[in-house]
Amino acid sequence: MQRTNLGLRIPKGMRDLLPEEIAVQESLEEKILTLFKQWSYQKILTPTLEYSACVQPDVEQEDLLYKFFDREGHILTLRPELTIPIARLVSTRMRGGEFPLRLCYGADVYRNSNVRHREFRQVGVELVGSDQELADAEVIALAVEAIAGLGLKNYQFNLGHMGIFSGLMLEAGVDEGIRVKLEEVLARKDMVGVELCVRQSGLPERVQELLLRLPHFRGGEEILDEVLGWSERPAIREAVESLRTIYRYLEDFGVQANVALDLGILRGFSYYTGAVFEGYVPGIGFPVVEGGRYDALYADFGLPQPATGFAIHLGNLLEQFPLPVVEGADVLVYGSDAQKVIRQCQTLRAQGKKVELALGVSGKETAELAAQLKNIKEILCVE
Amino acid sequence: MQRTNLGLRIPKGMRDLLPEEIAVQESLEEKILTLFKQWSYQKILTPTLEYSACVQPDVEQEDLLYKFFDREGHILTLRPELTIPIARLVSTRMRGGEFPLRLCYGADVYRNSNVRHREFRQVGVELVGSDQELADAEVIALAVEAIAGLGLKNYQFNLGHMGIFSGLMLEAGVDEGIRVKLEEVLARKDMVGVELCVRQSGLPERVQELLLRLPHFRGGEEILDEVLGWSERPAIREAVESLRTIYRYLEDFGVQANVALDLGILRGFSYYTGAVFEGYVPGIGFPVVEGGRYDALYADFGLPQPATGFAIHLGNLLEQFPLPVVEGADVLVYGSDAQKVIRQCQTLRAQGKKVELALGVSGKETAELAAQLKNIKEILCVE
Repeated sequence: MQRTNLGLRIPKGMRDLLPEEIAVQESLEEKILTLFKQWSYQKILTPTLEYSACVQPDVEQEDLLYKFFDREGHILTLRPELTIPIARLVSTRMRGGEFPLRLCYGADVYRNSNVRHREFRQVGVELVGSDQELADAEVIALAVEAIAGLGLKNYQFNLGHMGIFSGLMLEAGVDEGIRVKLEEVLARKDMVGVELCVRQSGLPERVQELLLRLPHFRGGEEILDEVLGWSERPAIREAVESLRTIYRYLEDFGVQANVALDLGILRGFSYYTGAVFEGYVPGIGFPVVEGGRYDALYADFGLPQPATGFAIHLGNLLEQFPLPVVEGADVLVYGSDAQKVIRQCQTLRAQGKKVELALGVSGKETAELAAQLKNIKEILCVE
Repeated sequence: MQRTNLGLRIPKGMRDLLPEEIAVQESLEEKILTLFKQWSYQKILTPTLEYSACVQPDVEQEDLLYKFFDREGHILTLRPELTIPIARLVSTRMRGGEFPLRLCYGADVYRNSNVRHREFRQVGVELVGSDQELADAEVIALAVEAIAGLGLKNYQFNLGHMGIFSGLMLEAGVDEGIRVKLEEVLARKDMVGVELCVRQSGLPERVQELLLRLPHFRGGEEILDEVLGWSERPAIREAVESLRTIYRYLEDFGVQANVALDLGILRGFSYYTGAVFEGYVPGIGFPVVEGGRYDALYADFGLPQPATGFAIHLGNLLEQFPLPVVEGADVLVYGSDAQKVIRQCQTLRAQGKKVELALGVSGKETAELAAQLKNIKEILCVE
């Protein structure tokens, strides 16, 4: 049936990958997954579809989800990320495994948002079963090495902690309404919004000063001492010291120079509970790496286990790399006798050659033109 | 939030892939795609989501589709196959390419059916821009070699032609109602249904005999002559001779021994117009390969081009292969001083070793147990 309008078009937010484009994506993914495996992470895969009842409780922006019914009338969701589906998998088929588990994946995720890409490739890891700062440091270091290994320059990671923000909010006596609003503008790094929100809060001067200071708590270990100057609350002290330990381990991993402490960072999924981090590369205005500790999620699946991990938004990185020239076959075989052409092709293939059988090629000139356009090095005429 | 019921479960028809399971799938896919590339097919990828207006007109069983709305209120579909999305892609971004185009893919497809798997992996090829029998023979030979290359034994391909069935229906004067019913039972290879359908048709004895004979038109070239004995209609003669030419080419490709002519085969998608084929392996009751010629589809996308291709249902083949043992790291590094352990791990990684940093391992005994359970060959204690 003749297609018109939408029938001829690719849906908004989707993209096709031509040979040179898929070559870039696959080569990046392979590099990163090879690194993950070298750090002893094992590849797994969950399905594209999950029950909404599995994914939704911990995805804050519900309107980002693609949702629909299956035959049984249950609501399904296209996975918006992998951390929750992997928690479902680990708490069922892998619960008898050797913890800590180190898992990795490469998969497409889906967000029905207003941004350019609604389907994009993610690669990531989950380290399940350790509450040690060493585990946090390992995944952060692995994320930094993954980005560095792609040959990207001037990337930058920020490291914060959910406990410091929430502790300071409690300390300052900020009420829930302002807290939520502040979290939103901070997560967007909307400094004008932060200022507006704070000025309208009616909070004491000292607290307003602290809130305005938050997005600027960024740098090395010295900012941790500064935080302790604001509060002696045990929960904050604990978070600060945890962050200090992680940050020092990053020096041992050899990646500290690329990581700044940043107490203003907040992540978009609600499951984070501890150290959180994000990675940026020049020219992309949002994080290409997002990760952190989520110690409460597994208990929701009946298997209490601390965990940490990250995802790299590979789809957003593709444009940072030049497209390769896609290689053609080694040899183009043509001739007027189809049977002879077939047999010649099969003989060359048996020798390990990459062979294209010429269809609709009648003579030497057509063959030469076809070979040139298809980037094929050699032409063979069979008569 | 605590999960209950569905929130803890994987959706019906979906599956998780554990490390050893994904290892099998990836190794099969890589073998097949390597072969496709040796035959000069180039890899491309279309998105998971398509507009229903693109996919639906040529998918007969509409209730197989997962459908839902995007933000703009357009109906989206999870791709149930790749042939139509690739036609959309070729007729837009690749229309200036060098035809014939040889394209291949590996991707998940989705069918909201009552069968065991609703998401499954497909690998396949499309050869766009040639109406020659040589093109048909090439893709059939490639399909046979792909299955043979997996090391499967006793696989069997059947080759038929849409023009013969439809021509015989016309010749016999079978009306539309019976034809549709017959097509349905024939496609299912439901012999009881065929018999019932024919006996109730009220058609002349000679025509009934022909219809009952249809599922048994299976064998070598001799069945082509038998068909010609039933009808001298030019369309049928043309289809028969086309099939004869393809079948003889298959001998030149060296695969004819694994292919039987079978005039009773019919494919589930409505776009097929010429030679069609299917491949079976022992122990799986439905085709693991499906393909054929579809010369009208590209015109529907405004780019009239003949085409042929096939898909291998990789997901259904996985259970035919033993699960490999997943290798652990080369070395497990442990010790009481985290900084020293980190530095030792990084040194070994820089030497190319696959290293696991022991978390929560306090002594030699725990380390040895962990290494054994995780299949790690060597243990290194750093003090």
